[in-house]
Amino acid sequence: MSVYLVGAGPGDPGLITARGLDLVRSCEALVYDVLVSPELVEEAPADALRIPRERMGQEELNELLVSLGRQELEVVRLKGGDPFVFGRGGEEALALAAADIPFEVIPGVSSISAVPGAAGIPITHRGVSAQVTLVSGHSAGGDDLDFAQLATTPGTLVVFMGLAHLAAIADGLVAAGKDPRTPAAVVSRGTLADQRSVTGALEEIAARAEDLASPALLVVGDVVLFAAYLGVTGDGARDVGLLEAGDRVGLEP
Amino acid sequence: MSVYLVGAGPGDPGLITARGLDLVRSCEALVYDVLVSPELVEEAPADALRIPRERMGQEELNELLVSLGRQELEVVRLKGGDPFVFGRGGEEALALAAADIPFEVIPGVSSISAVPGAAGIPITHRGVSAQVTLVSGHSAGGDDLDFAQLATTPGTLVVFMGLAHLAAIADGLVAAGKDPRTPAAVVSRGTLADQRSVTGALEEIAARAEDLASPALLVVGDVVLFAAYLGVTGDGARDVGLLEAGDRVGLEP
Repeated sequence: MSVYLVGAGPGDPGLITARGLDLVRSCEALVYDVLVSPELVEEAPADALRIPRERMGQEELNELLVSLGRQELEVVRLKGGDPFVFGRGGEEALALAAADIPFEVIPGVSSISAVPGAAGIPITHRGVSAQVTLVSGHSAGGDDLDFAQLATTPGTLVVFMGLAHLAAIADGLVAAGKDPRTPAAVVSRGTLADQRSVTGALEEIAARAEDLASPALLVVGDVVLFAAYLGVTGDGARDVGLLEAGDRVGLEP
Repeated sequence: MSVYLVGAGPGDPGLITARGLDLVRSCEALVYDVLVSPELVEEAPADALRIPRERMGQEELNELLVSLGRQELEVVRLKGGDPFVFGRGGEEALALAAADIPFEVIPGVSSISAVPGAAGIPITHRGVSAQVTLVSGHSAGGDDLDFAQLATTPGTLVVFMGLAHLAAIADGLVAAGKDPRTPAAVVSRGTLADQRSVTGALEEIAARAEDLASPALLVVGDVVLFAAYLGVTGDGARDVGLLEAGDRVGLEP
């Protein structure tokens, strides 16, 4: 018996790993996050326990995993994205290790790159960005973010966040000295059928993203210019003069 | 017809996505990097063209993809990791877009998190690290890295690199003011059967990693302490007093 902490990927059920899917298909108990695709939950055997996480706190969830492991079940803990990227997989792994329950982490496709990618944005590109900074902006108003430091960091900035905090985060970056005309994108429900994204200058991205749904991800940096060139998205880019900025990165409008 | 830029994942062939594997199994031409697992190449249909990239330059490769696309073949371009994370997928996508060849990017599990994860290191952990910085240290001596900026960036630092540059990168960080006792890990051939990793303080990590093989990844930050606690690796941690540092992150030796 073992507990597998499996990354389900960014949303599209086809983006779980082959190994993760095999484990879901042969498990005896499946503990899953509410954001995990229902199609993946359906892949578990008909007689497997299916336990949605829903209102369970992290402590309670850790105890559940330990308890299922002690019952010698093959347990899959299916989590959105990658368990070790803003996924609190470390906390679950520590609880299992402390209880001497064998466990294994099966990584998943993280939203970090898959969600910008689905909107036509490579988070790195030779000559444009060779550095990526990932932060979480989930807490109220992004108060925990060090805007002064983030505003001067080169390369691409990717912020996991609730849309409620977008304006505070964008304003915080600009107030700390980030060029208000820096290209930015918000990708909502990335890789899902109802994915939507907007691009625009940092100073106006919050207004442009007003109608989008959570979960969403903010990308800031010149790599956003690729969205228009790759023809995947690009609403906004033509309006706000971002294409002219494409000259900076060797792209011709 | 279409060209699919597919991420093969970090090494273990089970870590390709379900969708990526389906595309490999039904393609008519497979263009693959030498680091891609031979098991995945074997999944292509028996009559598919199999084209190893090997000594092909990026320009030549872009032209090959355009040419295969023009022949109306179902083409899979199989790349290590994720196409858009230090993968030059953006360059291939731009070439295809410029030639009006339909293409799609299928993200992959990036080494960013999967390789540290395979060594027991979550790149984020609540209360320990809520920020991750990714850089590439492939160029000679890491000369292109802004050590002054990287040394003062909070959270976890992940460096993609050749082992030949490890000493220069570690020394550069320490010379720029990074605490020489910062926990560090090098993970070699992560997720593969012959994965090896070492942990230790930043100032001695290069000496400890001397016998490892490329490709390798450097992780710097307190999250490295988890490797010992999660019991996955930990060679080095007990020797160099890193476990005492675990107090900092609320871990008890």
